[in-house]
Amino acid sequence: MSSHLPNATQPINVGILGATGTVGQRFITLLSAHPWFKIHVLGASPRSAGKRYSEVVKWKQALPIPAGVGDMVVRECRVDDGDVEEGGGKWRGCRVVFSGLDADVAGPIEASFRAADLAVFSNSKNYRRDPHVPLIVPLVNPSHFSIIPQQRALHSPPLQKGFIVTNANCSTTGYVIPLCALEKAFGPIESVLVTTMQAISGAGYPGVSALDIMDNVIPYISGEEEKIEWETLKILGGIAESDAGLKTFDMHAKHPLRVSASCNRVPVIDGHTECVSVRFERRPPPSPQQVREAFAAFTPDCQALGAPSAPRRAIVVHEEADRPQPRLDRYFQDGAGVSVGRVRQCQVLDVKFVVLANNVSIGAATSSIINAEIAVLKGIVG
Amino acid sequence: MSSHLPNATQPINVGILGATGTVGQRFITLLSAHPWFKIHVLGASPRSAGKRYSEVVKWKQALPIPAGVGDMVVRECRVDDGDVEEGGGKWRGCRVVFSGLDADVAGPIEASFRAADLAVFSNSKNYRRDPHVPLIVPLVNPSHFSIIPQQRALHSPPLQKGFIVTNANCSTTGYVIPLCALEKAFGPIESVLVTTMQAISGAGYPGVSALDIMDNVIPYISGEEEKIEWETLKILGGIAESDAGLKTFDMHAKHPLRVSASCNRVPVIDGHTECVSVRFERRPPPSPQQVREAFAAFTPDCQALGAPSAPRRAIVVHEEADRPQPRLDRYFQDGAGVSVGRVRQCQVLDVKFVVLANNVSIGAATSSIINAEIAVLKGIVG
Amino acid sequence: MSSHLPNATQPINVGILGATGTVGQRFITLLSAHPWFKIHVLGASPRSAGKRYSEVVKWKQALPIPAGVGDMVVRECRVDDGDVEEGGGKWRGCRVVFSGLDADVAGPIEASFRAADLAVFSNSKNYRRDPHVPLIVPLVNPSHFSIIPQQRALHSPPLQKGFIVTNANCSTTGYVIPLCALEKAFGPIESVLVTTMQAISGAGYPGVSALDIMDNVIPYISGEEEKIEWETLKILGGIAESDAGLKTFDMHAKHPLRVSASCNRVPVIDGHTECVSVRFERRPPPSPQQVREAFAAFTPDCQALGAPSAPRRAIVVHEEADRPQPRLDRYFQDGAGVSVGRVRQCQVLDVKFVVLANNVSIGAATSSIINAEIAVLKGIVG
Amino acid sequence: MSSHLPNATQPINVGILGATGTVGQRFITLLSAHPWFKIHVLGASPRSAGKRYSEVVKWKQALPIPAGVGDMVVRECRVDDGDVEEGGGKWRGCRVVFSGLDADVAGPIEASFRAADLAVFSNSKNYRRDPHVPLIVPLVNPSHFSIIPQQRALHSPPLQKGFIVTNANCSTTGYVIPLCALEKAFGPIESVLVTTMQAISGAGYPGVSALDIMDNVIPYISGEEEKIEWETLKILGGIAESDAGLKTFDMHAKHPLRVSASCNRVPVIDGHTECVSVRFERRPPPSPQQVREAFAAFTPDCQALGAPSAPRRAIVVHEEADRPQPRLDRYFQDGAGVSVGRVRQCQVLDVKFVVLANNVSIGAATSSIINAEIAVLKGIVG
Repeated sequence: MSSHLPNATQPINVGILGATGTVGQRFITLLSAHPWFKIHVLGASPRSAGKRYSEVVKWKQALPIPAGVGDMVVRECRVDDGDVEEGGGKWRGCRVVFSGLDADVAGPIEASFRAADLAVFSNSKNYRRDPHVPLIVPLVNPSHFSIIPQQRALHSPPLQKGFIVTNANCSTTGYVIPLCALEKAFGPIESVLVTTMQAISGAGYPGVSALDIMDNVIPYISGEEEKIEWETLKILGGIAESDAGLKTFDMHAKHPLRVSASCNRVPVIDGHTECVSVRFERRPPPSPQQVREAFAAFTPDCQALGAPSAPRRAIVVHEEADRPQPRLDRYFQDGAGVSVGRVRQCQVLDVKFVVLANNVSIGAATSSIINAEIAVLKGIVG
Repeated sequence: MSSHLPNATQPINVGILGATGTVGQRFITLLSAHPWFKIHVLGASPRSAGKRYSEVVKWKQALPIPAGVGDMVVRECRVDDGDVEEGGGKWRGCRVVFSGLDADVAGPIEASFRAADLAVFSNSKNYRRDPHVPLIVPLVNPSHFSIIPQQRALHSPPLQKGFIVTNANCSTTGYVIPLCALEKAFGPIESVLVTTMQAISGAGYPGVSALDIMDNVIPYISGEEEKIEWETLKILGGIAESDAGLKTFDMHAKHPLRVSASCNRVPVIDGHTECVSVRFERRPPPSPQQVREAFAAFTPDCQALGAPSAPRRAIVVHEEADRPQPRLDRYFQDGAGVSVGRVRQCQVLDVKFVVLANNVSIGAATSSIINAEIAVLKGIVG
Repeated sequence: MSSHLPNATQPINVGILGATGTVGQRFITLLSAHPWFKIHVLGASPRSAGKRYSEVVKWKQALPIPAGVGDMVVRECRVDDGDVEEGGGKWRGCRVVFSGLDADVAGPIEASFRAADLAVFSNSKNYRRDPHVPLIVPLVNPSHFSIIPQQRALHSPPLQKGFIVTNANCSTTGYVIPLCALEKAFGPIESVLVTTMQAISGAGYPGVSALDIMDNVIPYISGEEEKIEWETLKILGGIAESDAGLKTFDMHAKHPLRVSASCNRVPVIDGHTECVSVRFERRPPPSPQQVREAFAAFTPDCQALGAPSAPRRAIVVHEEADRPQPRLDRYFQDGAGVSVGRVRQCQVLDVKFVVLANNVSIGAATSSIINAEIAVLKGIVG
Repeated sequence: MSSHLPNATQPINVGILGATGTVGQRFITLLSAHPWFKIHVLGASPRSAGKRYSEVVKWKQALPIPAGVGDMVVRECRVDDGDVEEGGGKWRGCRVVFSGLDADVAGPIEASFRAADLAVFSNSKNYRRDPHVPLIVPLVNPSHFSIIPQQRALHSPPLQKGFIVTNANCSTTGYVIPLCALEKAFGPIESVLVTTMQAISGAGYPGVSALDIMDNVIPYISGEEEKIEWETLKILGGIAESDAGLKTFDMHAKHPLRVSASCNRVPVIDGHTECVSVRFERRPPPSPQQVREAFAAFTPDCQALGAPSAPRRAIVVHEEADRPQPRLDRYFQDGAGVSVGRVRQCQVLDVKFVVLANNVSIGAATSSIINAEIAVLKGIVG
């Protein structure tokens, strides 16, 4: 390892943009017990700024607000808010800024924090399609961090330390992890058909009305199918380099990959369940048993790097006929891994299986945090 | 039409096997208001026999037990039960016998009623794979009634009036109706990938434990995927005739059809939602708009025949992005039709869409009743 | 009967304020099949005005928008909106105006319609505590219509035909019906303790977030306990007359009645369940069996008057140990009556029982409609 | 403290009767991490005996089967089962036996274990009304352990170490804890009216059918109201001694206490919510604020004794208007305490409030375990 490794005597200050929202609350819960990161500043809307966190948040987690956090004074999501009182210091004193902002405000705020040379790890969709911003699922493609120097260099003015990294949509995250395991073991996938059954917490708070979802399925989530179909290509694809040395995400170009997604909302609180069918380029394709073994053997790079929030087992393979199930499996390893089950022949493509991912953990805040850990370990965070 | 047409002055007596169960209750609700059929006898287990229906049933329908039914004395599911008291007449006095029996007892009971020369319309799975028993979804393949004469002739001893007709599994029923509309309009389908989200009422009563399904998805229903994959071929296939004149179901043999099903149980009371992707033989395939029009134009034969319980519209095509939904659409036309929505391009196969079918109506008792109406109209019921 | 009785050839035009909301949709569903009333105009926010109803509503009922209604052009909730186009005509052409407006806008709008000499039947809470506005549960206190002449006379300027009548809060409505039956049979009640388990539809749409109520109970509904405790006294009380001839609601003054309510939200779509304990003035108190008989014998005045939407049975008494239940009993008689069960001794007060009332039917729109029917039959509506 | 205090080098062997059931699974989860107790033997039906635990259990907990437990061989619930193989040893080697048996088999089995001189801590109802068996809610009446010597002496033949202790019904347990706090602070309570909204896990597995409880309230739980009304008196009452020195439970006789319970099942997975109204003997009664303070100040004896599973805070008093809620508050302190909120004036009795108790923790296995800890600390367990 190296000098980038944090040492116990010097915690890394982090800030949280959108700290009162659903994802923000999850960040707080996870970071309050983090071995490296220390919550230094909480940002929310101007309406909440200046007040104590416990006064303005509608806390919805099963565990209470962590000690010390409830009394923190909320700041605006402006880089210089708090500077006067703190002597140039609140937001600028953070080595990492996590963003749980809603998409309708995330764009300019995250850009302004990057422009202030801060490292931003975002859950929002706003920069996922940016050609210089990596879209990183930490158990899949941390190699895409290699585009950060170019992102800094092309910024105007060029940046020393600032950048934006995004993580994927919660429903994409869950199923690209097993897809990555399959491509690693058996080469390119040719087509994927995925049908999701997504939890209501994926829609934030207040999000889905109880009148809409109780005793019901809603076979539509706005923009979700497009996100899955596009993000999968960026995440599973590589990085190409032009003659001029410019890096671009290749969108799996050498082996065109067709993805068809059907997204449904179901009356489940946490945990997205996805039915996935896959066709490989390789003929004959691997057997269900080989697929099962490849899942179990999958070891993502972030484990080797030593990211403390990485799950011990990236993919848990269930043998019982009726697993994984959200209520029984979503909290395993604090939701940092994914569960796979029912691996079997598909009569139309090659192999089909069921994936369960905790959308509020690996599907959201946990991914951002592991991404930040990887960035620290790789020396990308200053 | 013809002399087979029932006239108002002479109702057709019907019996119900398994009258206290979920499907049996549904039969009673539907038949108590039927224009032709009159409930003549209710059959249940020996434990219930001899008692008043209202004493032994755990009635679970939203509407109360129909007037007159609660006081009927329950009979055993034996052809001769009630004969002495009634002078040779309870079960034998029925021109139609509906069966809502559980699969573990349906086999020999239904066979014994057929052997007594009675016309049995069964919801159970026991005879669906019998090579002489038609598996009829009334909006799809009433032409398969043509095998009945052979079924009677091959019975030992040969029968004059008795036969068994089955209807399909509830999850099969819903999606074969649009598939039938597509084959009618565009020729053979080559492959189908279907992911179901099935209601708990499909499992009967008590069926699914609340502890298993609340806030959960169970990605497995025992035997269900096999049923869908097999039944689809029998229903959409034709009838071949050997040189010796023997009829057999051809299982869609001339155009092999691959079906891949993934079945899930979700916390919905009534109504199975299914995400379907289809690939046609025809190249280029029809556009989503053509598919939409074919659905809307679909007119099943049973409507033309004048079956009174046939839905006015077999397939309702929804234009709203988020429909059909079980809670909003399952009771339209008393659940006798199916709803289709979200017809769109599939990136992997050709076209994908969402189907909603009321599993306790068209998926169960309603199908049996329309089948019986068709049999009456065709003169098959004596 | 009398000349007030509507005849078939001359339907009574009605308008609906707040036609796109939850209560408004319910009004439309009920009124589209009404024997006397004809929907003449639909009012909503200025944002929706001028557009077709089907374009602006998020329709959430199980049955589709009634034929003819979807194409109606929505008007503003201003008495003169539509006058120019219609020649002095839309709102002013209504003999009855139903209001399903939200409480935050209902006050001035309903007042302006009354001031235009229109008869307003409101579901909102705004005028329930007005000393001149009757708070009428149609199965309980239609006698309170007698205050209308005074309401008109005291209006400035005095009115010929206009007035406001309100119906009660949904949770009050359900349980005052059996209380009324008890007071009628056994004289004054001394104290009532009621604990409610209320459906989410009582909170409107979008109303309760699914994240708040799934797998949960919320033991609090803002303002609800105060409403029940106050409204009960106004409804069950009489009308006193001062020496000067001024009528006032006596709030059950001659026999002070103490009411203690505890209100809970539960994951039920429709139907409020209430556990009620009662202590009578009369000693010894009636037995549970006498209470049961009094419920069954209860015949509200509106039935005798011939109001077409009045339920055939005001109170259905269940004998089964585990009834009434919202899912099984809420739709009986289209939700126009109430269900009572588990009548038994209370160890602390005298008798306890369970009430179920459909909050969107008798608890809301149905009450308004029966109130309007009564007003027509009594000749109060001009 | 004393020599009864367990020391770390010598764990206390415990057995679990009914280990595959819902309560049994909960015992395993809690005991696998217990500082003193070590799971020594698991008992289930003869059908399961001889097989590995993981083969026979339908494990329904969110956390997986604890390491080491899955491979244990299940024994019959007979004291001598396993003796031959183990050299006189499986069940007889236990200092504590926990019973999670169903009531239909618990009676004779628990009696036989007591007769074998074993200390039995039972969750079943069978011996709760036995005049020599204490019914102990560990945060309320551990003083009732004083009847154990008499229970042993009156056994035929008299016992040295064996006894049965029961804990209370889950819905009783939750609300007697605040009642105990009130009596301690303000003297005798005169009457209590409690309405419960109980979770489905209280009915075991498979327990409640999803068809019965989804979108529903069932206003009845067989035998539950009687249990609450009776058990409350035994738990809150004292122990009287006759002239002959015979101890009897006095059922709160000196200050007769009237309890009226109304029990409902609601669609909540874990956590019973109860609305409680109380009338004190003392006039004037304490104010809501005094009641709130008494709850917060309540310190049960088992905390002072040092029982390791006792909650740090027996009663958490919530100030927010809408708390406690099962989904947000049931897991606090692993469900070992209770939550109280909405303390306010009652218009009919004196004070009312809402209680939430985790029925599978303090309402079941956790109570048994704390009872056993108290028995160890008091030297009652040999």
